[in-house]
Amino acid sequence: MSRPIPLVDESPIFQTVAIIGLGLIGGSLALAVKRRWPRSLVIGVDEKPVLETAMRMHATDVSGDSLVMAAEASLVVLAAPVRQNIAILQELPAFIPGRALVTDVGGTKAETVAAAEALPARLSFIGGHPLAGAARGGIEEARPELFDRRPWLLTPDAATDREALTTLRRFVEGVGAAPIELPAAEHDRMVAYLSHLPQLAVTALMHVVGESVGDTGLALAGRGLRDTTRLAASPPGIWQDIAATNREHVCDALDALIEVLRHLKAEAQQPAPAFDAIFASAARWKRQLDDR
Amino acid sequence: MSRPIPLVDESPIFQTVAIIGLGLIGGSLALAVKRRWPRSLVIGVDEKPVLETAMRMHATDVSGDSLVMAAEASLVVLAAPVRQNIAILQELPAFIPGRALVTDVGGTKAETVAAAEALPARLSFIGGHPLAGAARGGIEEARPELFDRRPWLLTPDAATDREALTTLRRFVEGVGAAPIELPAAEHDRMVAYLSHLPQLAVTALMHVVGESVGDTGLALAGRGLRDTTRLAASPPGIWQDIAATNREHVCDALDALIEVLRHLKAEAQQPAPAFDAIFASAARWKRQLDDR
Repeated sequence: MSRPIPLVDESPIFQTVAIIGLGLIGGSLALAVKRRWPRSLVIGVDEKPVLETAMRMHATDVSGDSLVMAAEASLVVLAAPVRQNIAILQELPAFIPGRALVTDVGGTKAETVAAAEALPARLSFIGGHPLAGAARGGIEEARPELFDRRPWLLTPDAATDREALTTLRRFVEGVGAAPIELPAAEHDRMVAYLSHLPQLAVTALMHVVGESVGDTGLALAGRGLRDTTRLAASPPGIWQDIAATNREHVCDALDALIEVLRHLKAEAQQPAPAFDAIFASAARWKRQLDDR
Repeated sequence: MSRPIPLVDESPIFQTVAIIGLGLIGGSLALAVKRRWPRSLVIGVDEKPVLETAMRMHATDVSGDSLVMAAEASLVVLAAPVRQNIAILQELPAFIPGRALVTDVGGTKAETVAAAEALPARLSFIGGHPLAGAARGGIEEARPELFDRRPWLLTPDAATDREALTTLRRFVEGVGAAPIELPAAEHDRMVAYLSHLPQLAVTALMHVVGESVGDTGLALAGRGLRDTTRLAASPPGIWQDIAATNREHVCDALDALIEVLRHLKAEAQQPAPAFDAIFASAARWKRQLDDR
């Protein structure tokens, strides 16, 4: 993933890119498209105040608060929260009369991919999930380099148009990311552990620690607790959506963590607690993680 | 805690300081004593290979692998793992014929303070716990500035000699730290949440994540998981000791975390997961933590 970030390309893959939802990801994608393909027309769909900021940032060329704006798009990117993306998928055919490639950037995939099966043949759907983020969300935090050298997961299946997939991979590379294909169900299982479980665990931990030691206690905390709890500043909105569309895997992951914590508690009650196996396993996986 | 770090003082508070156990903390304390009071005689007690490293680092003036080395010390610092410190407390009177101040630097306090009650009156004990650490332990990582501007918890009780306490506070300030007094039981409850629970939670999380997604999955992880799991590289040895001597509070803390995780799981199973309260609480405590 250390290949160079592509330069300006005067021949856009998509003449018109409609981005529905201009938050951190949608806004950054708009900027990344303008950076790579200045001749692409970028259409933004969101609420009026967000659109004004996007225009001021030169992220969009045209914008409006209705899906009708996307009518002429050759690429439609759903960049709202997951359940909103699913609702938009149902409305899309009424607004887009011609052929278009449709993708999304949501944090869970199986439900969105399933909902996309109802699209007419002229709208070719491939699920996507750029693994990029920032401490804070919102269009104000958007930047064209957000996806540079980051993985961008794509979840094609047997029904996927192979030509559309090739085109979407080129688009993803064009905005700086590295496309990686995997099945939607496997994607959802992976992110439950890589992203959703760490978020929920850290949120629970920070809540418990704060409630138990209060302000006086937190004053004594060291860098260990600070680093560990960086994710605890995340707003709940996006996570409720993610949990709602990845229920089964999130619950499995929570169960697995609870089971290990119960095991550690049982050990802590022994005269000589045997933590070795879990600590050794954690240290080994941590090395794998950091060596990447 | 932004007061200046003290300079060299030619009049040592303690003519002879014996440090039993020269790991990261004991070794750094030896170096910090030499930095502040070059005329203090620093005696190291540990195994031979450790002593050789300590001598090479100019951390100790005199050293040996027997407690008899501490016979002439006016300050004795127990800096071995907690249960070993407790064992040493029982042997100490046989080796130290005169008066001395005895303290420790262990991560749990109640059991050590209780064991110290058996000391003869000539050996005055006050529990201590410097809140300082590093990614890796061992004498090789020791450095004189480890305690600079860090809290150093002291756990005096009703039986504590007030003059000894005043002297120990001056010593702690002399090595760069900020003495903070609190009861041993309250100390142990606090650190169960501030230190022991985060360690066990992160260890459990890294183990579960690694086992569930493997090497391929970890390759997709972002900075969030990396930061969250920094503590997962800790070796188990010291933590088994800590859990064994702080069982009750560690188990309470694990129970509290498990309960919140179960609550999050129950919410994840609802049609519209309501994570708001826990996320809001976590974000609020995180702000308190980071504003410190």
